[in-house]
Amino acid sequence: MKSEKRFSSAMCAFQNTSDRYVTGGYKEPITMKEMINSTKSIPDLEGVELVEGWNVTNDNLEEIKDLLAEANLKTSMIIPELFTTKKWAKGSLSSNDPKIREDAKQVIRNAVDMAKKLDCDMIDIWLGQDGWDYCFTQDYIKAWDRIVEGLTEVADYDKSVKIAIEYKIKEPRVNMHVGTVGKVLLLLQEVNRENFGAVLDLGHALAAYENCAQSIALLKRFGDKLFHVHFNDNYRLWDDDLMACSVHTIEYIELLYWLEKTNYNGWYSLDVFPYREDGVKVANESFEWIKALIGVVKKMGMSKIEEVIAMDDATEAMALIRKALFSTSNGGLL
Amino acid sequence: MKSEKRFSSAMCAFQNTSDRYVTGGYKEPITMKEMINSTKSIPDLEGVELVEGWNVTNDNLEEIKDLLAEANLKTSMIIPELFTTKKWAKGSLSSNDPKIREDAKQVIRNAVDMAKKLDCDMIDIWLGQDGWDYCFTQDYIKAWDRIVEGLTEVADYDKSVKIAIEYKIKEPRVNMHVGTVGKVLLLLQEVNRENFGAVLDLGHALAAYENCAQSIALLKRFGDKLFHVHFNDNYRLWDDDLMACSVHTIEYIELLYWLEKTNYNGWYSLDVFPYREDGVKVANESFEWIKALIGVVKKMGMSKIEEVIAMDDATEAMALIRKALFSTSNGGLL
Amino acid sequence: MKSEKRFSSAMCAFQNTSDRYVTGGYKEPITMKEMINSTKSIPDLEGVELVEGWNVTNDNLEEIKDLLAEANLKTSMIIPELFTTKKWAKGSLSSNDPKIREDAKQVIRNAVDMAKKLDCDMIDIWLGQDGWDYCFTQDYIKAWDRIVEGLTEVADYDKSVKIAIEYKIKEPRVNMHVGTVGKVLLLLQEVNRENFGAVLDLGHALAAYENCAQSIALLKRFGDKLFHVHFNDNYRLWDDDLMACSVHTIEYIELLYWLEKTNYNGWYSLDVFPYREDGVKVANESFEWIKALIGVVKKMGMSKIEEVIAMDDATEAMALIRKALFSTSNGGLL
Amino acid sequence: MKSEKRFSSAMCAFQNTSDRYVTGGYKEPITMKEMINSTKSIPDLEGVELVEGWNVTNDNLEEIKDLLAEANLKTSMIIPELFTTKKWAKGSLSSNDPKIREDAKQVIRNAVDMAKKLDCDMIDIWLGQDGWDYCFTQDYIKAWDRIVEGLTEVADYDKSVKIAIEYKIKEPRVNMHVGTVGKVLLLLQEVNRENFGAVLDLGHALAAYENCAQSIALLKRFGDKLFHVHFNDNYRLWDDDLMACSVHTIEYIELLYWLEKTNYNGWYSLDVFPYREDGVKVANESFEWIKALIGVVKKMGMSKIEEVIAMDDATEAMALIRKALFSTSNGGLL
Repeated sequence: MKSEKRFSSAMCAFQNTSDRYVTGGYKEPITMKEMINSTKSIPDLEGVELVEGWNVTNDNLEEIKDLLAEANLKTSMIIPELFTTKKWAKGSLSSNDPKIREDAKQVIRNAVDMAKKLDCDMIDIWLGQDGWDYCFTQDYIKAWDRIVEGLTEVADYDKSVKIAIEYKIKEPRVNMHVGTVGKVLLLLQEVNRENFGAVLDLGHALAAYENCAQSIALLKRFGDKLFHVHFNDNYRLWDDDLMACSVHTIEYIELLYWLEKTNYNGWYSLDVFPYREDGVKVANESFEWIKALIGVVKKMGMSKIEEVIAMDDATEAMALIRKALFSTSNGGLL
Repeated sequence: MKSEKRFSSAMCAFQNTSDRYVTGGYKEPITMKEMINSTKSIPDLEGVELVEGWNVTNDNLEEIKDLLAEANLKTSMIIPELFTTKKWAKGSLSSNDPKIREDAKQVIRNAVDMAKKLDCDMIDIWLGQDGWDYCFTQDYIKAWDRIVEGLTEVADYDKSVKIAIEYKIKEPRVNMHVGTVGKVLLLLQEVNRENFGAVLDLGHALAAYENCAQSIALLKRFGDKLFHVHFNDNYRLWDDDLMACSVHTIEYIELLYWLEKTNYNGWYSLDVFPYREDGVKVANESFEWIKALIGVVKKMGMSKIEEVIAMDDATEAMALIRKALFSTSNGGLL
Repeated sequence: MKSEKRFSSAMCAFQNTSDRYVTGGYKEPITMKEMINSTKSIPDLEGVELVEGWNVTNDNLEEIKDLLAEANLKTSMIIPELFTTKKWAKGSLSSNDPKIREDAKQVIRNAVDMAKKLDCDMIDIWLGQDGWDYCFTQDYIKAWDRIVEGLTEVADYDKSVKIAIEYKIKEPRVNMHVGTVGKVLLLLQEVNRENFGAVLDLGHALAAYENCAQSIALLKRFGDKLFHVHFNDNYRLWDDDLMACSVHTIEYIELLYWLEKTNYNGWYSLDVFPYREDGVKVANESFEWIKALIGVVKKMGMSKIEEVIAMDDATEAMALIRKALFSTSNGGLL
Repeated sequence: MKSEKRFSSAMCAFQNTSDRYVTGGYKEPITMKEMINSTKSIPDLEGVELVEGWNVTNDNLEEIKDLLAEANLKTSMIIPELFTTKKWAKGSLSSNDPKIREDAKQVIRNAVDMAKKLDCDMIDIWLGQDGWDYCFTQDYIKAWDRIVEGLTEVADYDKSVKIAIEYKIKEPRVNMHVGTVGKVLLLLQEVNRENFGAVLDLGHALAAYENCAQSIALLKRFGDKLFHVHFNDNYRLWDDDLMACSVHTIEYIELLYWLEKTNYNGWYSLDVFPYREDGVKVANESFEWIKALIGVVKKMGMSKIEEVIAMDDATEAMALIRKALFSTSNGGLL
């Protein structure tokens, strides 16, 4: 087992997050400088994801770069802004309007350039507005064609930067085109570029009734395409973006094992929305939980786990987890 | 069957609605004057619901009153602002902070006063922020005690105004205290005031895996407590706040029957969030659908429906709906 | 904290369970004698729940009593057979047919008698067939009236036996009348007998998007009505009846705390369907997990938990759980 | 629009269906002869699907063939028995046991032979037992490899028979390997045989939070792979297998349009479980609804629909449906 993970977080963990009711946000407005400064008390944090438009623009890029350097933070990923302005309300790459599609490609290319300027090797394309809310509003085939076409076109813009597609089944659209692990893999196979892969957002997988471990396994199997992982948690019906490990302990242990088994060596990056909590505390607590559960995997033992999986026996599996989780320290309690 | 319904809408149908990504809204900013003017092209609209704080304040109340009069609109309901400012982030009536609880009661009493000034006989208490996102953050008993205590205290403030509690299972909190029809009825029984009842938001019921018709029936059975209905639709897992009747046709027909059967005579009021649609068109289309489906109920016939229900035979039920829905006009098509 | 729990299990844990595809069951047929014998290797097991008709009948009651005595097992609960024969296909207590309703009451009274003969002080009424699958097949008000009427009638049959109502939102019916904690409490308040209370099946609560801890709290608050708890787990959308604690660790810790806090002193009883697993192993592993998680609650400390809850701070809550769960034994792992 | 559809049904519509509680079934036992006879009062029925093992075996094949001929019924599809006996409890093609995998392949090949003997050109492989219920019981990669390997091996057995894979997200396993439209397409692309395609069960798609119309569109786009459609309905969280069109009217209209648009010319086949209803009535009512909704599509008009879709305007879409659905016959009602 690799002893070192690289921990990162999207900036939304530290922002003044709002929802559709409290439109002004649940906290006070905060500047990028303040946010970056606040992360200094997160010892595990090595990188941050930046949403272009929200967190970084062509105008403030140099300033952000300096602030990050000063805080000793890398840029783990750049997320082109295809979902935070009304312009994309009815889609970006899949829009019926060719001008909008062109703009989307330009935003993506610009994000690639930004990434390089920030010494970052990956961008995350999340087609959050590309979907539908009502029947009879989409030509599903044309929409898919356009998504493939757009991605193929940006694919070769700069092969030194990885492009990772993030899937999500719903929200902000009631349905999204690239909604599941199966659909993202279809897309990757069709675009078929080495620098094209996927972001697995654990909460998105849970909300699609996926088992995260299987999603990791399939992304491995179909071309080693897991480029990045977003950590968070939810109650399975919605992308609640809660603190990592705050709901699904057993499934978290299993998915951490599969990250090891498949030799995932990308970032362990938070994507959480702590509307009412202190973002720094949420990040620290999330990292502590992730590390503790990696510890449980270690105690279970990679080869012992493989043995137990081969038995296909749920009681053996639960016993193995239990013994690692409670070990000696709890043994005498009852 | 009553031949006349009174149609209303919450103002969110006409607002510049935002979500957690497009925080500035999917449309252009719009004034109350513009919104009220826009409703003039909704022939069925007789009333509007106003969220105190969002739509009306003590300061602009007279102006709003004049605008509504000029547009020939009644105020169907006032909704005290207990969910749109960061102040209520960790609850209003159930807050751990006695000062916040006191403020919430004051907001409610003020909303009662506003209602009277606007010749409106009902306020809607939606405890949208009273809930929890994580385990071990709530004393569920104390929270319930406080909600009962707060409501009981405001109950007698002015018996000439009805107070209707709106339940919802989730959003903005991951879990809300007053989440289901059963829980709202427990609350109504404990507070036990004649002017206390419930708002049924159809989408909230669907998202709680309720059958809206049963919810209407239970609200009737336990003291005739259905004071107001919010019309909208969703895909069952989230409060998507779509146009009325855009997803659940059969269930809509059944619930419209139950509104008739239980002699509901309150407003048929929209609560929709047309992020990407024209709000006026959404309202018009919603009313057209509701009227058309009431027409289907009428064609089925109240006594014939009762007969079929008594048979407890799904094929008879589906045949009755089918014959009323497709009638002669489709009969020869295939 | 009480140091001793009483552990029990429904017999389905040891039966040859089937589903709608493998109608003959996933295991070999097994007799009650064999099942009871098999439980001898479950050291924690003190009691068993018996479904009348499935597990015990008037005819074999004496034989079963002897077998249980020989195995040193108590009868924790008798479950009248209102859901395993085609007779109840369209309801038992809520049936449109007065003869069926009468038969259901007789089955309940007989179960009360059986319970006494088996030195058992509680029966569990689960109205599994009382619901609906399609719109326009139920008069929801009449159905509720009949359920109340039937329960009231059996309530006074023998006040020395507790009658506990088990709620469930769906399956085998697509919708069930007594579906949620709110609805069961409405029922208990209306029947209003001291010997009437509720069974909380944790999986049923999860499948209704309830937080089990809140359900426990409300059952306490409204008259101390939690008579019995069924332990199992699921993935939140269906009553999967998996091994206890196999999915929801954090929520399990919280609910175990609430059982302590509310002084629940009934059985900790399994209701699991190990289609493909060894039932004895499933029971043993379930009990080991429950005990281990009670150990975690103990380590967290009742008063410390209360303190943290009062803070309404999710990071404090998660830190408290984490420190108790991983304690010294994992501290040095990473 | 094609004026003629071919209607079929799986035999489960007419069987004595059971669930995990009423293990003996909700109706009386019934023979194949009786079932086939009963279908004579379903005028639209032209074909039946037969589950090998349940409905037809090598032993009774000739007898069944004669019965079908006498009833003037074609065999629309043969479904190899990979999910109704305990043998497959832990998987068929993905089993850890090579002997089981070999047996599964043999069952499939035998089903191909049976199909030909019954003048049927398609079999349906539903890997209902190939999945998992608990974490740490599956090597997800190996399982997928084995499924691909098994299917590839049977693919070339007889190219004159189509092999259609049916996907489902859950039940009888809590999770199934081939769970979504995306995953089935990945499988089809890898096996890559002309006679390999998919069965779309509408209820399975709904239970996976898919939009059926999009699923149809994607199956078209990726190689014209929609071989067969199962009609039924549900409340979105489970495969309730209700009568077709009994819940989702609008979505049904959209999917029927997409079947036309993509030139689907396979069977319109029921897969319903009428536990408590008369199966013949359920089939008749289902076909009447499907025909009536096809009539609505016809009234909307294929080119007008295309125009409206291109507008991406939900109010236009709902107006178009409304006008076709209620047309003149309801227009004057309110």
